[in-house]
Amino acid sequence: MRLLAQSHVATTLAAPTELMLMIEAARAPGQAIVEEALTTTPDPGLIASETDGIRLRRGVAEGPIEFAYRALIDVDPRRPVTPELVQQRWSDLPSAVLPYLLSSRFCPADKFMRFAAREFGDLAGGAKLLAILDWLRRNVDYVHGVSDAETTAERTFVDRAGVCRDFAHLAITLARAGGLPARAVAAYALDLQPPDFHAVAEVWLGGGWWLFDPTGLAPVDGLIRIAHGRDAADIAFLTTGGATGPLTMTVSVARMD
Amino acid sequence: MRLLAQSHVATTLAAPTELMLMIEAARAPGQAIVEEALTTTPDPGLIASETDGIRLRRGVAEGPIEFAYRALIDVDPRRPVTPELVQQRWSDLPSAVLPYLLSSRFCPADKFMRFAAREFGDLAGGAKLLAILDWLRRNVDYVHGVSDAETTAERTFVDRAGVCRDFAHLAITLARAGGLPARAVAAYALDLQPPDFHAVAEVWLGGGWWLFDPTGLAPVDGLIRIAHGRDAADIAFLTTGGATGPLTMTVSVARMD
Amino acid sequence: MRLLAQSHVATTLAAPTELMLMIEAARAPGQAIVEEALTTTPDPGLIASETDGIRLRRGVAEGPIEFAYRALIDVDPRRPVTPELVQQRWSDLPSAVLPYLLSSRFCPADKFMRFAAREFGDLAGGAKLLAILDWLRRNVDYVHGVSDAETTAERTFVDRAGVCRDFAHLAITLARAGGLPARAVAAYALDLQPPDFHAVAEVWLGGGWWLFDPTGLAPVDGLIRIAHGRDAADIAFLTTGGATGPLTMTVSVARMD
Amino acid sequence: MRLLAQSHVATTLAAPTELMLMIEAARAPGQAIVEEALTTTPDPGLIASETDGIRLRRGVAEGPIEFAYRALIDVDPRRPVTPELVQQRWSDLPSAVLPYLLSSRFCPADKFMRFAAREFGDLAGGAKLLAILDWLRRNVDYVHGVSDAETTAERTFVDRAGVCRDFAHLAITLARAGGLPARAVAAYALDLQPPDFHAVAEVWLGGGWWLFDPTGLAPVDGLIRIAHGRDAADIAFLTTGGATGPLTMTVSVARMD
Repeated sequence: MRLLAQSHVATTLAAPTELMLMIEAARAPGQAIVEEALTTTPDPGLIASETDGIRLRRGVAEGPIEFAYRALIDVDPRRPVTPELVQQRWSDLPSAVLPYLLSSRFCPADKFMRFAAREFGDLAGGAKLLAILDWLRRNVDYVHGVSDAETTAERTFVDRAGVCRDFAHLAITLARAGGLPARAVAAYALDLQPPDFHAVAEVWLGGGWWLFDPTGLAPVDGLIRIAHGRDAADIAFLTTGGATGPLTMTVSVARMD
Repeated sequence: MRLLAQSHVATTLAAPTELMLMIEAARAPGQAIVEEALTTTPDPGLIASETDGIRLRRGVAEGPIEFAYRALIDVDPRRPVTPELVQQRWSDLPSAVLPYLLSSRFCPADKFMRFAAREFGDLAGGAKLLAILDWLRRNVDYVHGVSDAETTAERTFVDRAGVCRDFAHLAITLARAGGLPARAVAAYALDLQPPDFHAVAEVWLGGGWWLFDPTGLAPVDGLIRIAHGRDAADIAFLTTGGATGPLTMTVSVARMD
Repeated sequence: MRLLAQSHVATTLAAPTELMLMIEAARAPGQAIVEEALTTTPDPGLIASETDGIRLRRGVAEGPIEFAYRALIDVDPRRPVTPELVQQRWSDLPSAVLPYLLSSRFCPADKFMRFAAREFGDLAGGAKLLAILDWLRRNVDYVHGVSDAETTAERTFVDRAGVCRDFAHLAITLARAGGLPARAVAAYALDLQPPDFHAVAEVWLGGGWWLFDPTGLAPVDGLIRIAHGRDAADIAFLTTGGATGPLTMTVSVARMD
Repeated sequence: MRLLAQSHVATTLAAPTELMLMIEAARAPGQAIVEEALTTTPDPGLIASETDGIRLRRGVAEGPIEFAYRALIDVDPRRPVTPELVQQRWSDLPSAVLPYLLSSRFCPADKFMRFAAREFGDLAGGAKLLAILDWLRRNVDYVHGVSDAETTAERTFVDRAGVCRDFAHLAITLARAGGLPARAVAAYALDLQPPDFHAVAEVWLGGGWWLFDPTGLAPVDGLIRIAHGRDAADIAFLTTGGATGPLTMTVSVARMD
């Protein structure tokens, strides 16, 4: 499927401020970047780097600044999570996957060991992940305005409501608490209403990462990966070393074939 | 300096349990492993792997299990942190260093931006780090029993007391909130009283990592690095996928020259 | 039923320290104090006061101090909570009951509004309380050592384990979140194993308070009320204005008829 | 000083919802209600009650509802807090004052014992309170939008920013942690910009309550007391047993002499 992803981010920095920007499509298996352009206005001379396919711009900026990204991407269909997918033993996991078993800023899996054992302890692998997603569907409401940039999976578990980021954090937390490596993925998403940067998740099963949307709001085949990491702290589209003014942001994804 | 590090860890696993063990000295610049031995009794066939010099054993075990480690290590003197060490711009940092600017499970730097700006905002680089360490010395007491495995830097900041792990977390949090990459380091430590696995920290300054002990309890030249990571979640000597019985642990470090 | 309650509390205060002691049986309907004695050694001249039947000693002490209490109490049988007990409208509640609808230190009911509506929203009154108690029985394990003096109902809800105090806090929190006035009760408890000061709860239904033990560990007819309040902060057997040394404590309750 | 206080609160309740309203001036020493009117539109037949001078309306409402209050009040000048005001011993406090020594939902004084001892431990009474207020002035910024209805004094202590409610909570928490009874007060405030319901605090010193505004935004002589309680949970102008629609609110206070 050929997708046109566009985003526009603007803010004002009252003082010279360090920043990292992640709004470019990742170089990743299953998504081919046909053409793209990132414009920064004015251009403070940001440095581009790439790690594990994730592309980052960083530098220091001051005053009003705008980022505009436009990319044509071919996305391959993705395999759905199925119950029989195997939960690998820790000894069989690639070393690079191990950190995704551990607790992180918004995903305190260490606090959920008992709940995960009690609720999903009889299951493993794909069946366990599907049970976690089903639990989320039955127990958490998609509600705007009940969470913020500091909301953890623990808070969402109690509040039983949140947005995409909160669903991703709770899915990741429960997966890790159940022994499944899990990570957060920032994405452009086709058919997401209202359009926005989307946060989804992926879990390591049977020797590979399986991408899914814990909210069920966007078809997994229409996701364009931007970045992955332990949780929202790692995949923010804009990270700054100081205060920013109000942030405006528009995102759109359209099917081109 | 030649050091003999020894540790002994024992526990009981009521059911077959996934585990990761990190008690071996890291392969790192400035510390040469002369000889070493790790014994697991009984041996469940743990797999050894190494990432970035950090050595890990993992596998599944059940019943009583003991790990004994003994290593002879030559440690080079370490450079002290000095005020003039430069705080590199984010654009000049190696990509691998960037994650250590971000918040993690026990180091929610995002919550401390305003405090760091207010307290250390006029400083940069080595001078900023030394001011943070001085603040810790003046404001936090070393006290056993006031913190536990879930204690975050936020809790320690309020409670104004903790152990080595808490001091490391708060130092790391304040450094990151001030724009300095910082990470947690697990170590064997000469002259630590009472002997234990030690948690210290390191900050990226002027193009390299600078190791220090935020508690001031152990001389930095007597530290043998085991592992580094974002915080205690990444460098635990034992991580398990389920409950363990009581844990006994003895550690010793002796000077051999 | 005639019960003999005894308790002994000892600690050491390094400096002159303000303290409040609540270990005496309350003067309350359904429990008659036949005889009693409270001994403080040495006696720093504590002042006794009584509010709403709750008896308190307070003053300043220093050095080693011991409190010994012994009381013979006749306790009437208590009415069990039944499903048809009416949930009164807020407009029908006595003013003194209203504060027990609100959030408190360990019972942040405001965070549980959505969960309570989702899980118990179709029920009211006694049926709602019984559903909450049944939920606790099915979802929370009685486990020593997983909680401490700072553990809130939110933490217990996530951890799914705790001791009597944690069960009481979570029961109270869910009741308040469901619109039922609820408070914590400190008690001597017959047949509690191991013997200890017990924390239970009571809910206002159909015009009165109904006492129950959310852990199910002690028969409600064997409870001797010491104090009630919003949560553990209000009913601690010993509150001090500064640090105390280690606390030793023995409690016993025996049937005398 | 004669003041005209007016407020207007409107919301919509999708379903029949229990509510408590506290927007009427309290009957309290030093403030005389010359005339007043409270209008509820439509009127669901709310019950009025009064406890300790605090006036409350409660009942069940549904659909759009508006409350309009208008009162002419004579307020006496208030005594300023002075350093020599005595910190009474716990044994000398009236029983009704004791609960204000304890931790509450938004004021976890138990977590601040060490900080209070370290920072204000050499002081007592009025001098201690003035030192706490001076600490707040030097260390916390008045900033809108950084806190919400769940923000505790612990969060504000870390974030170093907040609004009137947050300043009141942190002042109360530090006072209690230092052994001073302290409570939250909801008030109409002359000269508050922008006009709003105001949250201030009062501390028990030398045998009486001393009112003060930790933000310093409104003159203490222009405050009209509405309610007092342990913290914001107790003095909310509107408490409901379920979700409300958006809330609109206007407040004004004018000098009439």
